[in-house]
Amino acid sequence: MDNIITSKENPVIKLYQKLSASKKERLQYGLFVLEGLRIVSDALQENAEVTHLILTKQAMEHWGEELLQADLRDTKTLVISNELGNRIASTSTTQGVFAICRVPAAKAPVFTDNGRYIVLYGLQDPGNVGMIIRTADALGIDGIFMCGSCDLYSPKAIRSTMGSVFRESIFVVGSEDELFDVLKCGGVETSAAVIDTDAEKITTCGFNGRQAVFIGNEGNGLPAETALRCDRRVTIPMNGTINSLNAAMAAGILMWELKK
Amino acid sequence: MDNIITSKENPVIKLYQKLSASKKERLQYGLFVLEGLRIVSDALQENAEVTHLILTKQAMEHWGEELLQADLRDTKTLVISNELGNRIASTSTTQGVFAICRVPAAKAPVFTDNGRYIVLYGLQDPGNVGMIIRTADALGIDGIFMCGSCDLYSPKAIRSTMGSVFRESIFVVGSEDELFDVLKCGGVETSAAVIDTDAEKITTCGFNGRQAVFIGNEGNGLPAETALRCDRRVTIPMNGTINSLNAAMAAGILMWELKK
Repeated sequence: MDNIITSKENPVIKLYQKLSASKKERLQYGLFVLEGLRIVSDALQENAEVTHLILTKQAMEHWGEELLQADLRDTKTLVISNELGNRIASTSTTQGVFAICRVPAAKAPVFTDNGRYIVLYGLQDPGNVGMIIRTADALGIDGIFMCGSCDLYSPKAIRSTMGSVFRESIFVVGSEDELFDVLKCGGVETSAAVIDTDAEKITTCGFNGRQAVFIGNEGNGLPAETALRCDRRVTIPMNGTINSLNAAMAAGILMWELKK
Repeated sequence: MDNIITSKENPVIKLYQKLSASKKERLQYGLFVLEGLRIVSDALQENAEVTHLILTKQAMEHWGEELLQADLRDTKTLVISNELGNRIASTSTTQGVFAICRVPAAKAPVFTDNGRYIVLYGLQDPGNVGMIIRTADALGIDGIFMCGSCDLYSPKAIRSTMGSVFRESIFVVGSEDELFDVLKCGGVETSAAVIDTDAEKITTCGFNGRQAVFIGNEGNGLPAETALRCDRRVTIPMNGTINSLNAAMAAGILMWELKK
């Protein structure tokens, strides 16, 4: 370890910090950042395109052997000082394991028989988006569509997925029209999740064949016109005293019913 | 509004800050704090014992009329300067609405026919605890038992409940023995939620009569001996590639199945 990087002016370190802070930079470079042993290990294991692996001296001693077993032919590995690690870390108790990763190229969705999908429409909380992706992975949801939602590649969203971002099929769609076109061509029945006691209850509506459920914004739900464009409106029966589950929890219950 | 409090040495302000920062102080005084228009409104509406209502000058102008309609005979109302509000606020964009509230006296649980309960055993993340209480309220869970978990009355847990802390029956139990005694005397069947493919699947195990499901710690789950003390072990069937939902999400799905 002769070449321990200590300068915050190092171009990779500067790139890491720009990508960490700014969606614009992530879009421009087509790159995003990872922090933490588990998510970096997941990225390497799932063959995500890791362009740079950045380890503090301490992290290299602890986990270097384990991490360097991955196929790193296309990855540059940098060892940095612990001080520099603390500087670029997002938490005060960093493990000193960082990576820069390429945003995967957009793929066309492949719809399977009985495929079950979730559509995140206008979600703004990266923690919610991450938790929904993690849950989708655990429950075996076949794909996630995102439209008008927060940046999937922000550090907080990525961290909240707990690595599921590398396992789930995620499609970021530019417009509502494109979204409905893709789902219609795929022969997918669409259900809007709404808070409306007149909507079909998810306990009785039945989910057969290819199904996609739309989840709306945390505060406002789905726009009425988007809900009306879906084939049907469905609702989670709730207790009389309150009228709203957290968006991630509602999505979790809907995905559970979709996949059961 | 002649008496606007501006001093951080004001005894109520000092008490507020102590209660906000320290579980020990909350226990000693039997009081906890609330911040935000919605949760303070919920507390007043649900007749929680609000000892002090604290509003900034600006909050008084915006929401004073609305908030002062509540029954405040046993509540002291203080108006403070906006600067002092910013000082005691936990967020940089505070609404300037605060309260001090008495921890409700412990009650013995009343078990209803087909009562459905959740037991939080060793949960440490106040955000998870709050989200579970919110979800329990939405889904109509009849009571929540807490044993060896984080402080229900920390600002973060309280905030995450979104007011459901004032609507749900919550029982904080001092020991595992007491917990099992109470549930056994109540004729409640106990199920331990575990990650174990040999456990009974929640999709087929059936929940009949009085039922309580135990949820364990975020990282470690339930201790094996606690799981074995339960009448049965149940599990959420999951996708092969990962083995863990977030604790709050797992609790949400379990409560959904309990109440469906």
